[in-house]
Amino acid sequence: MTYCVGLLLDQGLVMLGDTRTNAGFDNISCFSKLQKFHVPGERLIATLSAGNLAISQAVLNLIQEGLPDPETGQVETIYTVPTMFRAAALVGEAVRRVHKTHGEAMKQQGVGFDVSIMLGGQIAGRTLRLFHVYAAGNFIEATTDTPYLQIGEHKYGKPMLDRAITSGTSLIEGVKLALISMDSTLRSNLSVGMPLDLLVYRKDSIDGVVEQRMDEGDEYFAMIRERWSKALSEAHQRIPAPDWLSP
Amino acid sequence: MTYCVGLLLDQGLVMLGDTRTNAGFDNISCFSKLQKFHVPGERLIATLSAGNLAISQAVLNLIQEGLPDPETGQVETIYTVPTMFRAAALVGEAVRRVHKTHGEAMKQQGVGFDVSIMLGGQIAGRTLRLFHVYAAGNFIEATTDTPYLQIGEHKYGKPMLDRAITSGTSLIEGVKLALISMDSTLRSNLSVGMPLDLLVYRKDSIDGVVEQRMDEGDEYFAMIRERWSKALSEAHQRIPAPDWLSP
Repeated sequence: MTYCVGLLLDQGLVMLGDTRTNAGFDNISCFSKLQKFHVPGERLIATLSAGNLAISQAVLNLIQEGLPDPETGQVETIYTVPTMFRAAALVGEAVRRVHKTHGEAMKQQGVGFDVSIMLGGQIAGRTLRLFHVYAAGNFIEATTDTPYLQIGEHKYGKPMLDRAITSGTSLIEGVKLALISMDSTLRSNLSVGMPLDLLVYRKDSIDGVVEQRMDEGDEYFAMIRERWSKALSEAHQRIPAPDWLSP
Repeated sequence: MTYCVGLLLDQGLVMLGDTRTNAGFDNISCFSKLQKFHVPGERLIATLSAGNLAISQAVLNLIQEGLPDPETGQVETIYTVPTMFRAAALVGEAVRRVHKTHGEAMKQQGVGFDVSIMLGGQIAGRTLRLFHVYAAGNFIEATTDTPYLQIGEHKYGKPMLDRAITSGTSLIEGVKLALISMDSTLRSNLSVGMPLDLLVYRKDSIDGVVEQRMDEGDEYFAMIRERWSKALSEAHQRIPAPDWLSP
């Protein structure tokens, strides 16, 4: 499994993923789920992926090698698509190509065609957007009503986001909340593991991107874990007792 | 779906369940998942159930009507079993009976045999115990290492319990934490719904049991929701910003 979260905020984009890949509990490895496609001054696009690693690696290769546009026939890559909508469509088309190549054989082996790809970014002069591409190649987009997307093991980390995230949340608060959401997931589910990969992009900057890998010893993440647990513990103790229960 | 949580604390037992039952999103109803079997001065046993409603209702009927003990042949009910271990075995036996009666026909209709029953309580002079009975009729027990059990839609409400619950948690803090865990689930999952049924039992009291139904207008639950959201929001804002991210 995997846990990845993306926040589309007024100030910019936060994308965070773990790095655990597993084929059974007795076979775990470390693979980054975050990939960046940056053309300085022109575009900043990033992906997070969950599901079958062979599928997501194939998709990421295809969008860099390029696929013909179904209408014009012209080959497009993630570095040349003119809009973020076309970028999402390119990822979807790549997912369908991989399904065409490997889907039937995987089915015969009893392996489901399981992949989810989150795609966020901005092309100079255009809007910052965030998409979730499904295994069928279709996709949805984050909006101001629900400015976050999750893929993988999403349930543990969702309540915190539901309570706190709006598109007006600042980039810094967004980073903290994404890390808290990840911490809640890490504590409860073994299939999600450190290190973490974080990307923070400031809207309209194209080159204003910060990337951070956080391993077990990361001081900032350790501080968040500790402060958050302490704050929660104090918070429930400060809530008054019900009057129908004697002490 | 359903969300139920049980806490086995040094001071006693907390059991909390929602009341939503659904057969598809367009067919939801209200059924209590909490049932109490009380013989004043002698025993206090309670169940919470999740899964297929027809199965759990049949099981609850069977344990009250009685089943023969597989070894002695003597008919036992939830009101006569001599120990909590035998109570859990009785529930397991009832689950297997229901499977024998309906399992094959359900399978033919493509309906899974899905049921989970939590069983907690105390018989006078014996230990307070909490069990989780599976669809195969086998069961596990809460211990001091992990003093809580969950059935149904457990993921949303788990991080809070993992962070805060130990067997030394007081009954009052336990009630607050169970309600916070339920609130996290209610906010994120439509298949879990109000009103809530809560049972609080003080260890060794047998008759020291408090039951509370909380509906949409419940003031205490509304206060917990509001104070908790506010406390969380203040907590993440108080965490310092990372030095690798400029404001």
